[in-house]
Amino acid sequence: MERQFRIGIFDSGLGGLTVLREIRRRCPAADLVYLGDTARTPYGSKSVPTIQQYARECARFLMSQEINLLVVACNTASSVALVQLSQEMPFPVVGTIEPAVRSALSVWRGGTIGVIGTDATIASGVYEQMLIGANSSIQVVSRSCPLFVPLVEQGMVQGDIVERVVDLYLKSFRDRPIDTLILACTHYPLLKPVLQQYLGVGVSIVECSTAIADRCLESAPASRASSGGGVRYFVTDTPSRFNYLARELLGEGPVSAEVVEL
Amino acid sequence: MERQFRIGIFDSGLGGLTVLREIRRRCPAADLVYLGDTARTPYGSKSVPTIQQYARECARFLMSQEINLLVVACNTASSVALVQLSQEMPFPVVGTIEPAVRSALSVWRGGTIGVIGTDATIASGVYEQMLIGANSSIQVVSRSCPLFVPLVEQGMVQGDIVERVVDLYLKSFRDRPIDTLILACTHYPLLKPVLQQYLGVGVSIVECSTAIADRCLESAPASRASSGGGVRYFVTDTPSRFNYLARELLGEGPVSAEVVEL
Repeated sequence: MERQFRIGIFDSGLGGLTVLREIRRRCPAADLVYLGDTARTPYGSKSVPTIQQYARECARFLMSQEINLLVVACNTASSVALVQLSQEMPFPVVGTIEPAVRSALSVWRGGTIGVIGTDATIASGVYEQMLIGANSSIQVVSRSCPLFVPLVEQGMVQGDIVERVVDLYLKSFRDRPIDTLILACTHYPLLKPVLQQYLGVGVSIVECSTAIADRCLESAPASRASSGGGVRYFVTDTPSRFNYLARELLGEGPVSAEVVEL
Repeated sequence: MERQFRIGIFDSGLGGLTVLREIRRRCPAADLVYLGDTARTPYGSKSVPTIQQYARECARFLMSQEINLLVVACNTASSVALVQLSQEMPFPVVGTIEPAVRSALSVWRGGTIGVIGTDATIASGVYEQMLIGANSSIQVVSRSCPLFVPLVEQGMVQGDIVERVVDLYLKSFRDRPIDTLILACTHYPLLKPVLQQYLGVGVSIVECSTAIADRCLESAPASRASSGGGVRYFVTDTPSRFNYLARELLGEGPVSAEVVEL
């Protein structure tokens, strides 16, 4: 019997589970291996060489799990380490940026596009470059939102404090209206309801997960055909908090992550 | 000429600078070496074995700097790694907990004592143990405040969002009044004005830094005598943000940290 197609997915913590959820839905026959580098989260405030080193260590661990495709489900790592990983790994490597840009362009209505992400992602300027490379007339406004990841990792995705932090970071998008907002961090889809309420229904909020799942299907069309794929979870720190929040987030029963040292 | 007394100080990030500031004031003749493990901050949400490993790596680096005394200026590391470090290191090791408890008992007026810190510090229960060990009639109420460190590391120490996060965490101290609050995290003194305003002037807010500086003076009485001690700063990630915030915090002109790999 032919072995199932196996997809490795890593993120600095929980955020990549928003990508895993979508891949699972669209590729139910694929085996998935998830790694959350919870001991070293967050990546977004760290330097480029540090993030590149951590990303390489995550990719090598997933290589040891005999994956056929790697999803870098972390915008920070995708922004600064994707080229390096693509060169070093013996399988295709899919990042978050090109899929998110593709999704944004499919709903864009000609106005300004907003991009929000971590310090490192926004400082890299990679979204602006790719959007303007696709269409030089696009106006882009970017903003880093460094408290969003700590809030989400605490399970805080609604309420008064979250709304005020959203106002702090997104006020400028009201002064200079946007028609499309790219969530350039895989944690941020968990804040989508509060972001949509703040910006109004006229703004299309896009993320990378659907386009990433499409890209996985291209590589392994058979993974759509049936169910039967399993999921293994690995983390680099004690799994209790991860297990609890992953269960809440995925809504599919208990999650039991194994601890690994990178 | 006899070499000056040299004190090593480490923390997961910026917080330990509140301790450095006090040691500098009271031991102006001592040489200080500060290490902020900024690549791996925050420690407070990580597991005990991970924190112990990181603390050991920090202590070993400072040992290579030929220090005579080590200050673990991080409550999380002090809570779970102090005994281990004291056994392994060839010089005295001073943590934050006993000094903070000593300060609290010197101002305590017989009511309930509140303790706030990171998840790991509060879960360790070490403050309750030490307070109740000193006086079995003491009532202690503890609360972890996991968003305080991310806020301080962003330079956010006042304003509407900070006040609401303070209310989220400290509301229970209004329902069950305290007369003393121990800041069981070296980041928290930067929030002292907003905490004092929230709790009112009737609550004594104590931290570890003064008692730690006293302890340093005991080990090196001559370091009080004159000025002349230097300070070197090391960090594990890009220093730009650290340099900027350290300058703001210390108010003593430019800070130029060197990067070190642990």
